[in-house]
Amino acid sequence: MAQQSFSAKILDLSAGSRIAVLNIKDAESLGVVAWDRIRIKGSDERGAAALVDITKSIVQEHQIGLPRVVAQELTVVDGDSVSVQPIPPPISVRYVHDKMRGKKLGREELYSIVRDVVDRNLSEVEMAAFVMAEQYQGMDDDELLWLTRAIAETGTRIDFEKPVYDKHSIGGVPGNKVTLIIVPIIAAAGLLIPKTSSRAITSPSGTADTMSVLAPVEFSGQELRKIVSKINGAIVWGGGLNLAPADDAFITVEYPLQIDPEPQMIASILAKKLAVGTDFMVLDIPTGEGAKIQAPEDARRLGNRFIEIGGKLGIRIRCGVTYGGQPVGHAVGPALEAREALQTLEGTGPASLVEKSTALAGMLLEMAGKTSKGNGQELAREILQSGRALKKMKEIIEAQGGDPNIKSDQIGVGAYKQSITATADGYVTHVSNTAINQIARATGAPGEKRSGVLLYLKRGHKVTKGEPILDIYAERQSKLEQAYSLVAKLQPITIEGMLLEEIPEF
Amino acid sequence: MAQQSFSAKILDLSAGSRIAVLNIKDAESLGVVAWDRIRIKGSDERGAAALVDITKSIVQEHQIGLPRVVAQELTVVDGDSVSVQPIPPPISVRYVHDKMRGKKLGREELYSIVRDVVDRNLSEVEMAAFVMAEQYQGMDDDELLWLTRAIAETGTRIDFEKPVYDKHSIGGVPGNKVTLIIVPIIAAAGLLIPKTSSRAITSPSGTADTMSVLAPVEFSGQELRKIVSKINGAIVWGGGLNLAPADDAFITVEYPLQIDPEPQMIASILAKKLAVGTDFMVLDIPTGEGAKIQAPEDARRLGNRFIEIGGKLGIRIRCGVTYGGQPVGHAVGPALEAREALQTLEGTGPASLVEKSTALAGMLLEMAGKTSKGNGQELAREILQSGRALKKMKEIIEAQGGDPNIKSDQIGVGAYKQSITATADGYVTHVSNTAINQIARATGAPGEKRSGVLLYLKRGHKVTKGEPILDIYAERQSKLEQAYSLVAKLQPITIEGMLLEEIPEF
Repeated sequence: MAQQSFSAKILDLSAGSRIAVLNIKDAESLGVVAWDRIRIKGSDERGAAALVDITKSIVQEHQIGLPRVVAQELTVVDGDSVSVQPIPPPISVRYVHDKMRGKKLGREELYSIVRDVVDRNLSEVEMAAFVMAEQYQGMDDDELLWLTRAIAETGTRIDFEKPVYDKHSIGGVPGNKVTLIIVPIIAAAGLLIPKTSSRAITSPSGTADTMSVLAPVEFSGQELRKIVSKINGAIVWGGGLNLAPADDAFITVEYPLQIDPEPQMIASILAKKLAVGTDFMVLDIPTGEGAKIQAPEDARRLGNRFIEIGGKLGIRIRCGVTYGGQPVGHAVGPALEAREALQTLEGTGPASLVEKSTALAGMLLEMAGKTSKGNGQELAREILQSGRALKKMKEIIEAQGGDPNIKSDQIGVGAYKQSITATADGYVTHVSNTAINQIARATGAPGEKRSGVLLYLKRGHKVTKGEPILDIYAERQSKLEQAYSLVAKLQPITIEGMLLEEIPEF
Repeated sequence: MAQQSFSAKILDLSAGSRIAVLNIKDAESLGVVAWDRIRIKGSDERGAAALVDITKSIVQEHQIGLPRVVAQELTVVDGDSVSVQPIPPPISVRYVHDKMRGKKLGREELYSIVRDVVDRNLSEVEMAAFVMAEQYQGMDDDELLWLTRAIAETGTRIDFEKPVYDKHSIGGVPGNKVTLIIVPIIAAAGLLIPKTSSRAITSPSGTADTMSVLAPVEFSGQELRKIVSKINGAIVWGGGLNLAPADDAFITVEYPLQIDPEPQMIASILAKKLAVGTDFMVLDIPTGEGAKIQAPEDARRLGNRFIEIGGKLGIRIRCGVTYGGQPVGHAVGPALEAREALQTLEGTGPASLVEKSTALAGMLLEMAGKTSKGNGQELAREILQSGRALKKMKEIIEAQGGDPNIKSDQIGVGAYKQSITATADGYVTHVSNTAINQIARATGAPGEKRSGVLLYLKRGHKVTKGEPILDIYAERQSKLEQAYSLVAKLQPITIEGMLLEEIPEF
């Protein structure tokens, strides 16, 4: 039978697509298999499309499990009768197949795919296929432009009515808390910088996780506008603003596949900038062993592509290729990083963090014409050292609902702590991003905000036997032990002259 | 919290992986997102791994939905208490990522992936990524050998204790019912041919669908052995034999992506042959417009690869490159095809079908040494024309539980019928596989067995205006109309000299 009548049962499988759940017997009788499409109709004739999943037990025969969003579209409630009919996949699925075969996609094709991603009409397997096709087939500039526009236009847009400045890092390096230093510098210079940041997916702390130690980060677009119109700057979680919902969906498949194809990365970043009306942006491209980009020539090529595409979208971009071969600063984990950022604003932060933050901030100040080319970093340093950046940060913390009087030494860190000391004299030849990430995750970060890693030494430092090389902090003893056992296994810090192991053991 | 206690609720989402369902609040508190892994423990300390899906309504807080198979492994029932703990993905996920990056995989890596596919430890997204990596990165002969062996060895194997003959088509051409003619010819010659076939996924009829019109096709391995030991031949559904369960899983992602990468196709076919102990095989490679393989040189390259890999696995293979640019014979759809096959065995089938079937059967007879090279087709023709193949087919039908006395004209076809006639004189220049497939699917085939398409004309035939060119059959009026409307749209048969449309219309 090609069309059948079912009793609706509202069932929210929130992870993933618009999936309606059929009993295996009904699926057989309708002639559908998992991930086929059906149209479900209530009293309204238009109906709603959904993907099929099949169960033996979640719904009974002649019952259909509907996601809440579909039930709302159909205005049906539990127990209402609906009809079901198999339908072909949406046209966007054909465009995904086209891209898999290496065909260049045009405006309409890319909008169609992105719209169906946002509406959850594509299955995870189809989204994964699209992202993998981007990886293997690449995208030319035209495709990338349309993809970016489509991702921006299927989300919310916020208009700040003044030139908007922004900074962004392509990420991948632990401890990169520079946003918390750059944003107040830029805002203190009188420029608008409504910074939206992400939470960590695989890292021990995203900028939004770090900022959340100092103040709430979840705001609506209107609230963000209000804050920024008053004090020029903010550091909020972008995920709550619906700026690029397609990107959030793509990430759910990129994450298990551990891929981030270049076109998708560029489109994702620039779409969010388009959505907030960014006019000028500095892009940080950390480069080095264990970073996303390993070789300087790749960083240059990527930077030029960003500048090119950004230009076509009306976003002026300058790129800073920074050293990403080891963590930025010394602290990794939300509270430890917030503390180090605040120390830096207070004037007691590590030199390398001051250097990186002011270099990137300076580029933005030059773009804004606040100073001539070549003098931006000097101006940024002045704003930082004069205390104006700290004052601005306090305004931001207050505007976001945090305590503006907090001092760096009042930020609480994990009660369970273990120090690791050098077992020999020597020089630090290597600090591993991957190992530090894994150890910091093992402490419980970012979920447990006070957990993380504090490094005493960076590459090139001299160390004496018995000197502390790193501390691990955790909120719970069990996590501390797990992280500690990883330290021995992963060797996060290599000291030249230090015996790693002795074979055979004595 | 890293480990929590839950109340078990058995929930079978049968489509797909081992998915345990958590309430969104518990997922947040455990720090897991969709498709992360957890280990679930009951009273037994070992526990079971599962992927995570997240719901707002299917399970409540502190409840966990478990697939039946996981509940059985843990010996827990509804309401039992289990503990849950996040764990990293299995090692096979890393091997999938390796393949995505172009790394050559070895024996252990491929066995690990295939085993986790069979155990449903990989998510659909991960399986799709592996299949796409095969498509884009290819596989060398070593990888292909291990993949094939792994797929064969993770399934059931059947030992027939005598040399086993087999034929296989790589498919893609409608109406390819030659198996129903070749198997009885080979079995009548005294050779063992336990043919396992598939049901249609995207075509209007798989060989198992066609055979099921004449006799049941679902048997256990033991039943198949018993039938074949008595009468040498059988035509059964391979899906019920668990011969290559990994392949069944891979197909669930290949189907929505419409891909069938060459390594996966070769491994899938040869693994099933290995599983039934095939010694000699003829491979039909239909080649031409609208077939899987378009160009003869591609057919030759593919054929040689099959011969090479087969040789290493101990399977002697000969390939027949056949014309696949239009349907085989005239009938498309389970009952229509069964009728045409039976007609051919009775001596009244179309010449092209006789030609193709005896050519392929002849190659097997030569491999078996039943006749000298070059005389196989002649021998096959004799067996067919003498009625010995028909007699053997009746034995097969009877052994499988069908009616051995059925005659071709007793096979019922759809009660609703519509004839399409030529609108002009001319020659048939093209019969479209894709259009015939779509029209036949629209009639309801293969689900509605008596539905389908009967072609009167093939490429090169002369036709006079008003002469019938095809009939469509359906079990229901609505399906007949749907299929009929597609005929006008898809133009399945092109007649030179026939006006396709007139512009402007009058």
